[in-house]
Amino acid sequence: MKSMFMFGPNVIPDSQIFYQSLHCFGLVNLKPIIPGHVLVVSKRLVPRLNELRPEEAADLMISARNISSVIEKYYKGTSVTFALQDGPDAGQTVPHVHMHIIPRRTEDYENNDDIYSDLNKFEYRKQGVDHEERKPRSELAMKLEADQLRVLFGK
Amino acid sequence: MKSMFMFGPNVIPDSQIFYQSLHCFGLVNLKPIIPGHVLVVSKRLVPRLNELRPEEAADLMISARNISSVIEKYYKGTSVTFALQDGPDAGQTVPHVHMHIIPRRTEDYENNDDIYSDLNKFEYRKQGVDHEERKPRSELAMKLEADQLRVLFGK
Repeated sequence: MKSMFMFGPNVIPDSQIFYQSLHCFGLVNLKPIIPGHVLVVSKRLVPRLNELRPEEAADLMISARNISSVIEKYYKGTSVTFALQDGPDAGQTVPHVHMHIIPRRTEDYENNDDIYSDLNKFEYRKQGVDHEERKPRSELAMKLEADQLRVLFGK
Repeated sequence: MKSMFMFGPNVIPDSQIFYQSLHCFGLVNLKPIIPGHVLVVSKRLVPRLNELRPEEAADLMISARNISSVIEKYYKGTSVTFALQDGPDAGQTVPHVHMHIIPRRTEDYENNDDIYSDLNKFEYRKQGVDHEERKPRSELAMKLEADQLRVLFGK
């Protein structure tokens, strides 16, 4: 039987998944806030971190660590921003545990923290007013990025 | 022998530590950006997440999850912001792996993401220009908070 991955209410095509562990998967973005901005998502659909079992929370961080090393190198970054918005009042828009992984470079933003303003405008597949300025990528562009990344994980 | 915890170049008094696991500790802040803003820090002093061993990264997230549940409830939050600035170009100021855990409430900031602007001004024990507007807490206030939190973890 083929597994099917959900991100909140959305079914995720395999073509957009570049990483898998026992409890998590890595997903490319429709509207990355900078190149290489990806998500690590728990396979089990629960909104909040404290609903994950310890082994699932552990896997999330180990996955984030593994993914960040590859993403930072591939996108020629020098640092990585990790953010987990746990609940709507923390800016979570998709009610499903997910961590943002964003490769950073010197002066990629004029003010380092402006990235969070973009991050909080980020909503997966939503065409809200906030997001009109960022053009969604094509299915093909997302597939190609996931294909490239998948190779780096030896899959 | 008594263990001694470092956070970057700083020796941390036991009185400020409210949580311990095998590989991590929980630390109250000199200048929390909002009440209940705490840190979870790896016991081993390395700057970057990918320098942690898998079991250390796992412990960091399990600790963050455990701490967040307690902190959210204690500070009457409804959500939690987790942020890990991994490297100087991600805004990391203390070169030692640490994750910010911040209980959030509806409209605690007029714009939800303004918290990150405060977060990036945050520097542990530094009296930089950015921080003058936030008065550092007394050793006693920090000890009292850590004492209260420690009780909640059954220690």
